Amino acid sequence: MWCQSCREEYEERDAGTCKECYEEASETEEELKREIDDLKSKVAFLRLASPHDLVSTTDLVLHASSSTSPSSPSNPNSSLCTTPAVPAHRAVLISRSPVFKAMLENEMEESRSGIIKIYDVSYDVLRSFVHYLYTAEVLLDEHMACDLLILAEKYQVKHLKIFCEKFMTSKVNSENAVASYAFAHRHNAKQLLEASLSLIMDNMATLTEREEYKELVEKDPRLVVEIYEAYLTRQVNTAAKDLTLQP
Amino acid sequence: MWCQSCREEYEERDAGTCKECYEEASETEEELKREIDDLKSKVAFLRLASPHDLVSTTDLVLHASSSTSPSSPSNPNSSLCTTPAVPAHRAVLISRSPVFKAMLENEMEESRSGIIKIYDVSYDVLRSFVHYLYTAEVLLDEHMACDLLILAEKYQVKHLKIFCEKFMTSKVNSENAVASYAFAHRHNAKQLLEASLSLIMDNMATLTEREEYKELVEKDPRLVVEIYEAYLTRQVNTAAKDLTLQP
Repeated sequence: MWCQSCREEYEERDAGTCKECYEEASETEEELKREIDDLKSKVAFLRLASPHDLVSTTDLVLHASSSTSPSSPSNPNSSLCTTPAVPAHRAVLISRSPVFKAMLENEMEESRSGIIKIYDVSYDVLRSFVHYLYTAEVLLDEHMACDLLILAEKYQVKHLKIFCEKFMTSKVNSENAVASYAFAHRHNAKQLLEASLSLIMDNMATLTEREEYKELVEKDPRLVVEIYEAYLTRQVNTAAKDLTLQP
Repeated sequence: MWCQSCREEYEERDAGTCKECYEEASETEEELKREIDDLKSKVAFLRLASPHDLVSTTDLVLHASSSTSPSSPSNPNSSLCTTPAVPAHRAVLISRSPVFKAMLENEMEESRSGIIKIYDVSYDVLRSFVHYLYTAEVLLDEHMACDLLILAEKYQVKHLKIFCEKFMTSKVNSENAVASYAFAHRHNAKQLLEASLSLIMDNMATLTEREEYKELVEKDPRLVVEIYEAYLTRQVNTAAKDLTLQP
């Protein structure tokens, strides 16, 4: 027989589908592609101009601390005004984040002054964060993904958090698995947690030699316990499966 | 053979694809569906809250004339302040429409006053128009589609114009074909023009009896000429094809 799709001959044992199903599947594919085109043009329409191109209409500014370590801002006030402000619109922040919504719709200091101070990020990260709120676009590297995920979690911008988590999950390897696992745990990133835990368990033989492992034992031994528990569960399941498969 | 998709038996002459192509097609379908899910969540993210929910942050208002006929506002000034204003954000209007962008980024009266007067629409249409600029959503009926298309053309909101045109094209029938054709011509709606012209040509026998035809001959005879020219071209082509097919 001749395949209607690749136009090559095949044997009966390599048969796939009947003609009707093939034609239906082709139609479905066309429909899905049309839907994708429609959605893409909707995304293009809904994307706002960058706030820097709309600066004359902005009604608040965000200030970042120049401290680059998100977890330990040494002196929050010292560098506040040394980095440029990031202009934005209340309406956009309110639409994108329930945290900004609560902050700006109530009589809070930020709402009155039109200044939102964000101590625990660098200027570059804050700028990318705000840019994402307008455009749903950002160029990620591993550092940026990590910092933006933290910010997205803090301000409950789910879409950005998922985007960063996907990126980080695609970058997990045996070298960074322990660090990724600890990070995922800290920031409730389930997909990243599962991917890194799975990779850790695939490399249990070398786990205890790793520097990050030793650090984790020091800092957060409960997390290490969870690794061992997961490993044990996996071993028990594998053993049970092997037993079932025995003749 | 058994079809892997519908699980029914089929004869050799009803064969569709080989197994490899079937599996590939299934994977492609899954991928396309994932892409659709991603795009849908991006659309949900980019959608702004309705301006009515953001009213405390709006920085301009649009006023509609209560005149319901878009083409003949009898006295533009008479009803300006009798309908409620539609609040909006400069940033959103600038992002969505090059016409609003030019209006608001230059020192025009509208930019200074924060009031945009739109005489040739009803309040309901203007509200739906602005709502669409924020959300890419609108509930259409034939009147609304028609009025919004006009507004979308005027303010160069391409995405909305295409959306309305698609809706109107889906509603063309032998009853409204002549009116749709004239409307499409006036507003550069190519898809609608082709659909209505095709339907007119399918019903040429009754064309001259129609009231809208007689009106069109009065108002815009050149459009009627174009109908006859298209009909003639179609007849010539059909005749040529018939000749080729003759043995």
